[in-house]
Amino acid sequence: MINNKRFIAVIGGGQCSKAEAKLAEEVGRELARQGVILVCGGLGGVMEAACKGASSQGGITIGILPGDSRQAANRYVQIPIVTGIGYARNVAVVKSAQAVIAVGGSYGTLSEISHALQSGIPVIGLNTWALSRNSQQDNSIIPAQNPTEAVNKALELATDQ
Amino acid sequence: MINNKRFIAVIGGGQCSKAEAKLAEEVGRELARQGVILVCGGLGGVMEAACKGASSQGGITIGILPGDSRQAANRYVQIPIVTGIGYARNVAVVKSAQAVIAVGGSYGTLSEISHALQSGIPVIGLNTWALSRNSQQDNSIIPAQNPTEAVNKALELATDQ
Amino acid sequence: MINNKRFIAVIGGGQCSKAEAKLAEEVGRELARQGVILVCGGLGGVMEAACKGASSQGGITIGILPGDSRQAANRYVQIPIVTGIGYARNVAVVKSAQAVIAVGGSYGTLSEISHALQSGIPVIGLNTWALSRNSQQDNSIIPAQNPTEAVNKALELATDQ
Amino acid sequence: MINNKRFIAVIGGGQCSKAEAKLAEEVGRELARQGVILVCGGLGGVMEAACKGASSQGGITIGILPGDSRQAANRYVQIPIVTGIGYARNVAVVKSAQAVIAVGGSYGTLSEISHALQSGIPVIGLNTWALSRNSQQDNSIIPAQNPTEAVNKALELATDQ
Repeated sequence: MINNKRFIAVIGGGQCSKAEAKLAEEVGRELARQGVILVCGGLGGVMEAACKGASSQGGITIGILPGDSRQAANRYVQIPIVTGIGYARNVAVVKSAQAVIAVGGSYGTLSEISHALQSGIPVIGLNTWALSRNSQQDNSIIPAQNPTEAVNKALELATDQ
Repeated sequence: MINNKRFIAVIGGGQCSKAEAKLAEEVGRELARQGVILVCGGLGGVMEAACKGASSQGGITIGILPGDSRQAANRYVQIPIVTGIGYARNVAVVKSAQAVIAVGGSYGTLSEISHALQSGIPVIGLNTWALSRNSQQDNSIIPAQNPTEAVNKALELATDQ
Repeated sequence: MINNKRFIAVIGGGQCSKAEAKLAEEVGRELARQGVILVCGGLGGVMEAACKGASSQGGITIGILPGDSRQAANRYVQIPIVTGIGYARNVAVVKSAQAVIAVGGSYGTLSEISHALQSGIPVIGLNTWALSRNSQQDNSIIPAQNPTEAVNKALELATDQ
Repeated sequence: MINNKRFIAVIGGGQCSKAEAKLAEEVGRELARQGVILVCGGLGGVMEAACKGASSQGGITIGILPGDSRQAANRYVQIPIVTGIGYARNVAVVKSAQAVIAVGGSYGTLSEISHALQSGIPVIGLNTWALSRNSQQDNSIIPAQNPTEAVNKALELATDQ
């Protein structure tokens, strides 16, 4: 039964360090343990590590892909969504989630963080971007010290749009 | 376990006749009986009827929504994908499926049929559009006489892109 | 001065017959003569022929491209719009126009015709698709006998959304 | 004659301070003086101020709109592109430019900055976001002290993708 599940996105680089992969995998495991459906961009790096973690605990994983083929999905994606719209799919990744957990990441991840904040979707950060505007710090990205704290904060703040 | 499932899209009007709803519901039921995951645009009419049928048999339903809110999904959608890209999401509906079943439908449905055919994804039709080009019939939409035949033809022709 | 110009889209195959190219080029010429800005998908075939015709008369040409590079635009596109969203850009091609002229075309063109009709944007056809639904002809595509008639009908029916 | 023009995007809030509007208007004026075509998101605030500045010097202005209607364009947009894809159009705004000038801005602007940097398109900043990642400053946004410097840097760094 999938009804009434919560959806959390995990975002981060398509390539990542071992430390980031370890964090993302543990985020995925914890999401699955708490019965949350994992949404991601469906590719490698942080996305694959998170899906691997979730799958290991019997969780459900959704990969919203940029290209034209489901073959591009990492092997732990159970539900590939094939958008064909390139990086514009970043908008769909965050909008399909009730909260977002960012692990590391480069400019693609920053675009997802931005789209989430623009839509009022909470963003929890693990070793990720920090923002300031006109020399004033912007504290919209909520820091977490570890994967469990990240998942707990995400679930606490999850919104329903 | 969701791995290795097949994905079939059911497309049709957001408003539809009772006869179309009955067809769509039976398509949904038959897809679920055969263990197929149902993809649709997530709204009312044919989409809702198909999701209702699939849900009644314990099937999984995905709704790829045009707007900014999961609240717009019909109540039988278990996995709402929130794209925020309007009717451009029609491309994602068909690309996320290995075959498409069209039930009735208006111009939005015709755009989905077109995008599917453009991408080489088979389209099965139940009381839907017929096409001709330069006075020559185009037989790309494969007709089915009833929901079971439509599902069987879709599964037979399902491609993996 | 570009203000208060009308915008008409010319749609058709990225590859086309010589007869279609001739029609499209004459449509482009006539649009430019009447001071209309030409919108198209920016690639080859009918799009290139229409842009060539418009350019030869000093008209302005806009190419709304599917990919990530302006280099893909045909040489007669003066204003390349780089969307990066693949065939989902078909929606933007028709929505950016007040009427659409279809010359020949395959399934991509049919998707543009469908998106236009769904949005209430008039479609004029030159040797293009014909539609029927549930065995009833659909006369939404308005036929024209030649390029001048196509342009005149498009301007007469042009809507402002 | 529009051929061989350069395209620069001006991005910033749909609502903005008077100081930001003044900066944006001067950026628009300077772009037009240098014969550059202005690309923007087509709405109010910084976008409108930049278009106003460009128009006052006889420049060409393109507005790539998120919604379904050209009526949403500010009055200084000469070429409205109607995408219907919501904030996913932010990708098209930056990809259609050879460099981007950010004036102030909120999370939508930050998403555009991110998409530009992800695509290798130079970003010049006037009183806008500053970035750091894992406690290290990221200097990808090139600061400018005033509108003329912003335009000169943008033209110097303009890439052709």
